[in-house]
Amino acid sequence: GFAKIDHHRTLRSGLPEVIYAAGKTPEQTAAIFQRIAASGVNVLATKADAAHFAAVQTLVPGAEYHALAQCITLRQAQQPRHEGTIAVVCAGTSDLPVAEEAAITADLFGGNVLRITDVGVAGIHRLLAQRPLLQTADVVIACAGMEGALPSVLGGMVGVPVIAVPTSVGYGVAFHGITALLSMLNSCSPNTTVVNIDNGFGAAYTATLICRGQQKK
Amino acid sequence: GFAKIDHHRTLRSGLPEVIYAAGKTPEQTAAIFQRIAASGVNVLATKADAAHFAAVQTLVPGAEYHALAQCITLRQAQQPRHEGTIAVVCAGTSDLPVAEEAAITADLFGGNVLRITDVGVAGIHRLLAQRPLLQTADVVIACAGMEGALPSVLGGMVGVPVIAVPTSVGYGVAFHGITALLSMLNSCSPNTTVVNIDNGFGAAYTATLICRGQQKK
Amino acid sequence: GFAKIDHHRTLRSGLPEVIYAAGKTPEQTAAIFQRIAASGVNVLATKADAAHFAAVQTLVPGAEYHALAQCITLRQAQQPRHEGTIAVVCAGTSDLPVAEEAAITADLFGGNVLRITDVGVAGIHRLLAQRPLLQTADVVIACAGMEGALPSVLGGMVGVPVIAVPTSVGYGVAFHGITALLSMLNSCSPNTTVVNIDNGFGAAYTATLICRGQQKK
Amino acid sequence: GFAKIDHHRTLRSGLPEVIYAAGKTPEQTAAIFQRIAASGVNVLATKADAAHFAAVQTLVPGAEYHALAQCITLRQAQQPRHEGTIAVVCAGTSDLPVAEEAAITADLFGGNVLRITDVGVAGIHRLLAQRPLLQTADVVIACAGMEGALPSVLGGMVGVPVIAVPTSVGYGVAFHGITALLSMLNSCSPNTTVVNIDNGFGAAYTATLICRGQQKK
Amino acid sequence: GFAKIDHHRTLRSGLPEVIYAAGKTPEQTAAIFQRIAASGVNVLATKADAAHFAAVQTLVPGAEYHALAQCITLRQAQQPRHEGTIAVVCAGTSDLPVAEEAAITADLFGGNVLRITDVGVAGIHRLLAQRPLLQTADVVIACAGMEGALPSVLGGMVGVPVIAVPTSVGYGVAFHGITALLSMLNSCSPNTTVVNIDNGFGAAYTATLICRGQQKK
Amino acid sequence: GFAKIDHHRTLRSGLPEVIYAAGKTPEQTAAIFQRIAASGVNVLATKADAAHFAAVQTLVPGAEYHALAQCITLRQAQQPRHEGTIAVVCAGTSDLPVAEEAAITADLFGGNVLRITDVGVAGIHRLLAQRPLLQTADVVIACAGMEGALPSVLGGMVGVPVIAVPTSVGYGVAFHGITALLSMLNSCSPNTTVVNIDNGFGAAYTATLICRGQQKK
Amino acid sequence: GFAKIDHHRTLRSGLPEVIYAAGKTPEQTAAIFQRIAASGVNVLATKADAAHFAAVQTLVPGAEYHALAQCITLRQAQQPRHEGTIAVVCAGTSDLPVAEEAAITADLFGGNVLRITDVGVAGIHRLLAQRPLLQTADVVIACAGMEGALPSVLGGMVGVPVIAVPTSVGYGVAFHGITALLSMLNSCSPNTTVVNIDNGFGAAYTATLICRGQQKK
Amino acid sequence: GFAKIDHHRTLRSGLPEVIYAAGKTPEQTAAIFQRIAASGVNVLATKADAAHFAAVQTLVPGAEYHALAQCITLRQAQQPRHEGTIAVVCAGTSDLPVAEEAAITADLFGGNVLRITDVGVAGIHRLLAQRPLLQTADVVIACAGMEGALPSVLGGMVGVPVIAVPTSVGYGVAFHGITALLSMLNSCSPNTTVVNIDNGFGAAYTATLICRGQQKK
Ligand SMILES: Nc1ncnc2c1ncn2[C@@H]1O[C@H](COP(=O)(O)O)[C@@H](O)[C@H]1O
Ligand SMILES: Nc1ncnc2c1ncn2[C@@H]1O[C@H](COP(=O)(O)O)[C@@H](O)[C@H]1O
Ligand SMILES: Nc1ncnc2c1ncn2[C@@H]1O[C@H](COP(=O)(O)O)[C@@H](O)[C@H]1O
Ligand SMILES: Nc1ncnc2c1ncn2[C@@H]1O[C@H](COP(=O)(O)O)[C@@H](O)[C@H]1O
Ligand SMILES: [Mg+2]
Ligand SMILES: [Mg+2]
Ligand SMILES: [Mg+2]
Ligand SMILES: [Mg+2]
Ligand SMILES: [Mg+2]
Ligand SMILES: [Mg+2]
Ligand SMILES: [Mg+2]
Ligand SMILES: [Mg+2]
Repeated sequence: GFAKIDHHRTLRSGLPEVIYAAGKTPEQTAAIFQRIAASGVNVLATKADAAHFAAVQTLVPGAEYHALAQCITLRQAQQPRHEGTIAVVCAGTSDLPVAEEAAITADLFGGNVLRITDVGVAGIHRLLAQRPLLQTADVVIACAGMEGALPSVLGGMVGVPVIAVPTSVGYGVAFHGITALLSMLNSCSPNTTVVNIDNGFGAAYTATLICRGQQKK
Repeated sequence: GFAKIDHHRTLRSGLPEVIYAAGKTPEQTAAIFQRIAASGVNVLATKADAAHFAAVQTLVPGAEYHALAQCITLRQAQQPRHEGTIAVVCAGTSDLPVAEEAAITADLFGGNVLRITDVGVAGIHRLLAQRPLLQTADVVIACAGMEGALPSVLGGMVGVPVIAVPTSVGYGVAFHGITALLSMLNSCSPNTTVVNIDNGFGAAYTATLICRGQQKK
Repeated sequence: GFAKIDHHRTLRSGLPEVIYAAGKTPEQTAAIFQRIAASGVNVLATKADAAHFAAVQTLVPGAEYHALAQCITLRQAQQPRHEGTIAVVCAGTSDLPVAEEAAITADLFGGNVLRITDVGVAGIHRLLAQRPLLQTADVVIACAGMEGALPSVLGGMVGVPVIAVPTSVGYGVAFHGITALLSMLNSCSPNTTVVNIDNGFGAAYTATLICRGQQKK
Repeated sequence: GFAKIDHHRTLRSGLPEVIYAAGKTPEQTAAIFQRIAASGVNVLATKADAAHFAAVQTLVPGAEYHALAQCITLRQAQQPRHEGTIAVVCAGTSDLPVAEEAAITADLFGGNVLRITDVGVAGIHRLLAQRPLLQTADVVIACAGMEGALPSVLGGMVGVPVIAVPTSVGYGVAFHGITALLSMLNSCSPNTTVVNIDNGFGAAYTATLICRGQQKK
Repeated sequence: GFAKIDHHRTLRSGLPEVIYAAGKTPEQTAAIFQRIAASGVNVLATKADAAHFAAVQTLVPGAEYHALAQCITLRQAQQPRHEGTIAVVCAGTSDLPVAEEAAITADLFGGNVLRITDVGVAGIHRLLAQRPLLQTADVVIACAGMEGALPSVLGGMVGVPVIAVPTSVGYGVAFHGITALLSMLNSCSPNTTVVNIDNGFGAAYTATLICRGQQKK
Repeated sequence: GFAKIDHHRTLRSGLPEVIYAAGKTPEQTAAIFQRIAASGVNVLATKADAAHFAAVQTLVPGAEYHALAQCITLRQAQQPRHEGTIAVVCAGTSDLPVAEEAAITADLFGGNVLRITDVGVAGIHRLLAQRPLLQTADVVIACAGMEGALPSVLGGMVGVPVIAVPTSVGYGVAFHGITALLSMLNSCSPNTTVVNIDNGFGAAYTATLICRGQQKK
Repeated sequence: GFAKIDHHRTLRSGLPEVIYAAGKTPEQTAAIFQRIAASGVNVLATKADAAHFAAVQTLVPGAEYHALAQCITLRQAQQPRHEGTIAVVCAGTSDLPVAEEAAITADLFGGNVLRITDVGVAGIHRLLAQRPLLQTADVVIACAGMEGALPSVLGGMVGVPVIAVPTSVGYGVAFHGITALLSMLNSCSPNTTVVNIDNGFGAAYTATLICRGQQKK
Repeated sequence: GFAKIDHHRTLRSGLPEVIYAAGKTPEQTAAIFQRIAASGVNVLATKADAAHFAAVQTLVPGAEYHALAQCITLRQAQQPRHEGTIAVVCAGTSDLPVAEEAAITADLFGGNVLRITDVGVAGIHRLLAQRPLLQTADVVIACAGMEGALPSVLGGMVGVPVIAVPTSVGYGVAFHGITALLSMLNSCSPNTTVVNIDNGFGAAYTATLICRGQQKK
């Protein structure tokens, strides 16, 4: 067939392969979705539009669509939950789609998700007000576009890893997220690591592994 | 001669032409310095190294060198002072040369200068502690390299214009100040305008005009 | 809620938070518009299209749409006017949308606005003819695309701050405004500071603060 | 003084502030080193050259220099060790300086460090041979220059987070690490997050927090 | 006429000129297609959409359209086949269009084509499983987007030339194939050469010449 | 009004102002077209689409549309012709729109135009065959996309100025003409100067001035 | 030998091949210089340092060195002079080396050279004062770094071709001349064409051909 | 040890691992050189300076240094020669170091090398004169900097694969080889593939594999 599913991944990490729908036809996406679903695990497709979902739903009626986050999910497995708390923080209203992709992923893979919205650094009191909540998190995912300053400030407010997700929000020299990305890679807060622009999924995947590691011990 | 001095500028703005030494030979720099000095105003040369200063001192013995800021100054005019206060804030110790260029310029052109150092956003309490001081300023100059997040946070703490100066501090994708520049141009704080990388002088020049405009009224 | 409005900004600077509509749904935009309007201030949404306006108008019937500038405004407050004059100058006919965003913002926030249009530097006599008018301004906002040379020439004609706004006008290596931006950041006129591409709003916001500062004294 | 040390960081995260020496004079570096040392913690300065070390040694005789990694360390605290194992893997001999910066940091902050060297993907059998060793790690730090492909392959071999460190190794379109950085940010392995070029320190800092989080539970 | 066909190319290399349809109108494309067809050789047009094909079919009824690969072909010549085997390998399902362009070209020009699909390096066992098959190839064409790591690993698995084709698959800093391109140009495997993004045709053309050279001897 | 026409240009150079339609509404374009037409000269609008032409035709019925070149012209003046010959050469069929913009401009402004098409350097015999024709030209305009090599080869075949026009033809790292532009700026043929991507108009304008200068003497 | 001199060029254009010394050893440079000199023409080597000159002088004692312009010349031929006047204008003192390269080339190849220095656009009266002189030129060469605005303004002041030479003068986002280059390519003055950064030689070469063309008629 | 030599490569491809000296200390280079030498094959180190050679010579007295090409070689094996002819063509004298790296590699690995120098496209007759010689080659390696046009023209003159090597020769927007690289990737000649800037070694390595493949049959 046209796709070779990496079932081995579930063995390695306890987390299944996830479908990146953007470059695939609805038919390809649906076929892969069905094959992964057949193995009994929870299934996730990201960057999926309405046409992808329509095709998936035909083959896998139990699948759900999250329009804002452009995700398709199937909950079926007794996916073991872990005790970790993952805070998903975003700088502005426009960063919500990326933050939701992260939150849905983190939740589907068994974590407790804490959503904190519209706490951009240009009105710093709004962020400072969230400090008590933030300090309950085991990992923080920080989504921001434009100047991407949120992770630097957040990084200095918590003692846990911060995973920074640049978003493609902004105009002009926001460069569809490149400025936010570069800013985050230069963060003065050394507890910051970074993923690709708009990659809420990847951030949540790593956050889940961090929490599961804690669990194991 | 090889240089045509813009004496007209003093008439227009009350501030004399300033020498950008970096691209000039010591001899060219000294000759221009002397010619401007002859008109009686305070004189400033920026991006000047020790060789530039040696040549200037030969022709204009009263000139002073500021090694950290790489500036040569001559104070002679009864340069009218203005009542404005210009805060020059920098994110880290490494941004000091640029901040000093700004501070020396602002002072030479008649302003009260407030220096606030090493208040990067990764330990936000250090910056918040300066709020009372910051609120006495008529303009704020914010110098930062790496992710350049300082102006965004500062912009939300004051009600006056913030002039952001990206510095060439950092490594890797700091890109010698480009990341900080892009970050600042994308600032969510709408009271922020930006100058070229390491251009402390330009920031202070505009800050001075802002304060002098207040004076006039 | 999905948005945390920074009401604190009005206290800090006398100017309310402004809505950046581009990344928001019409519904989100309208909801935020209504909440800010409820606090009694003048309201502004930028980068808003017809769909944004339709949603806003449903909730806030008094709102107006400025199609060329893509702005929605609500005038209601006794927004105190200031005595300053803000000149909004643009290089070509194609820069008008950005210039209008600046002019509408400056006017809504209480200033006297002077519009000067199509005075590109390639026919310099057209700009020189405006010198008397330009010299009445307290701040100049200069909008230009393509080579972005206008602020450099303007900067040498006035003794007040020039805020340069690169526009996304041009083709080929105009790079949607990046060339104009870079050109402006390198301006030989030291009274020039720069904002993001097409950010007429930000320029007018800072210009307003400059004028209000003069007022205070 | 010229530096405001963030002592608060030790409280937040159990890890002290670290000195970035590159932009500082030897004297500034030594003064800050001494002040942090006085608080009793282990001290680390990164990107430090021989001149930095000479100045530090004068004030803090117990400090050690790691020439390959360009690090200065002082071991004094009863820095609590954690049980985690951090694998530091590098693609080629030329990546060793960055890998050593990571290894020294991880060790100083209390972890067990596993060094695996010269396992670039162009001779994949060398990497596959390390699988048993790799699977004992709690976090993997992967350092690579040129095409930066190592983290993608590694990511598929382990079930724990991989922190990718692009190095400035290579020539031509290696672009001093930019190509490796971009490659890593696009990794198909979703357990990969990325730090700035040559930032071995930051990778080890986050790796330490991940391991300490496991400890806590 | 508007086009001068390079018939000389068939003499030089045994392979006819190929039509790059993307920049041409359907009518221009069809006219050129017909003229090349008239000389009796197999004809190929690349980057052709449905409108191009409709126009071609009118003039040349025997032409076929390959929708996934966006190619139009006409098989008519007794194009001499060569004995070489060309493996066309792709990293993911989304790279299929480019891989198909390569496969169709290689086949039309007389080679044996071996298609190997979805063997990305993040699940390396899938690629290792293909080693026996790969070792029968005389040239390998490797198509990959995102981090473009496939050619580096493949290069170390075979003893023949690898022609790397970056694809425009991915998002964010995949930069429409630029990251994959840069990655491939930096490959540690010295048997790798590279063609333009999405240029499956060029890779297959060169692969054909390599095989035909072997034939000649 | 919204536009200030530079009538002075006709006096300076004998050539009228030309309308760049791309950034203007049809109404603005038509109004400016009519005002220039009223002064009696030949009129040209570039980068104009069908909507622009419809509006122009309403106000100026004699105007003509050149769809391939996206130009609107009005011939009315006794525009003095000059004796110069301008060769407009293009590398491939896809470069025709840009070449036509140049040819129409050169013709409207009074020159003899020589069109030479599809002589790309990859089949060099096609170009060499045009040598006799090329040597009758007073200026050569060379339009090419992709690798932009045509002007370098042409430059070595003639003894007159070559004006290179990069076109946005190509894909992948053609970067919409940037590669051709860079290539042309690096030309080893010192009789080459360059204009913006797709700027056939500018090339023809300068070519006209060169020929008219010859005339004058 | 290692070099094949293009003697054919003198026949084509009346101007000899010129040596680009930067990438060559002193010995290579000298050997080529001597071989061209032997053919009796005037000889020019550009981008030559003192070591290049020392080697040349040994073989060709009559050669002269122009340190500021980094040129070596040999005047020996009865190089026919032409009647054209070439104005070489530069924006600031720091642009002099590039302007001198242009002036020396233009003079060696038989033209009348008019040098106009330090007429940057930030004090526009200095440039306007040169209008009478400028109007005597047959071609204008305009050298500028930083924002590169000079050619746009100049282009509007004369009716002849302007050849724009970006210089590597400036810092920060001057990007060693790239900003000036981009700015010039976007010039609103359509009589502007552009050469590579710091390529005074190429500008003068084309300017000479333009003047010689006028002569011929 | 710090290096894991890929002895497996000789088995795979008949060609040994080659040392990239640039990022290694002289001692590391020498140690690896000695270990590879011990296995009896011919040894090559590229991008090696005098210090690297001094260290190698101490351990391996029979090693030779090629200063222009910056290569160290050891000839000892009965490296089987192949019958293929590899033409190494360069555009200008300044490209010689890269061309020599290619030529030395091709020769050491058993091929017949044909060196053709200084045949840049700006004097096309020089290249056309080499056609008979070029047509004896089984593969052509084309080295060029600046605009990188050579491979496009060469590609149209031969019926075998052309491997294009961009060189870092040039200034300004030559961008140390990037322009040549981009130009080559966009070549209209479909028999062109490309390697990294200055990577003469890689080109020769692949050329050798192509020739050896021919041999096998
Ligand atoms: N056109 C604009 N460009 C840049 N910033 C803007 C613009 N319009 C509004 N803003 C700012 O963007 C912020 C709103 O961000 P958000 O929370 O995402 O709505 C406000 O603080 C405004 O000051
Ligand atoms: N090599 C490094 N790369 C990135 N950040 C670093 C490095 N070394 C130290 N730091 C961080 O940089 C900050 C020091 O900034 P400064 O105030 O300029 O000394 C500290 O908070 C460190 O956590
Ligand atoms: N997909 C493709 N990518 C790159 N070059 C192509 C492609 N398809 C055809 N070509 C080449 O482009 C040239 C055609 O250019 P043109 O004269 O514009 O039709 C031919 O010589 C082909 O070898
Ligand atoms: N295609 C074109 N490319 C560049 N400049 C142009 C083009 N067409 C017209 N122009 C110039 O652009 C200027 C018009 O600018 P505007 O005032 O915005 O109409 C005129 O001075 C023309 O010389
Ligand atoms: Mg908000
Ligand atoms: Mg600090
Ligand atoms: Mg106009
Ligand atoms: Mg190795
Ligand atoms: Mg897959
Ligand atoms: Mg063609
Ligand atoms: Mg000057
Ligand atoms: Mg030569």
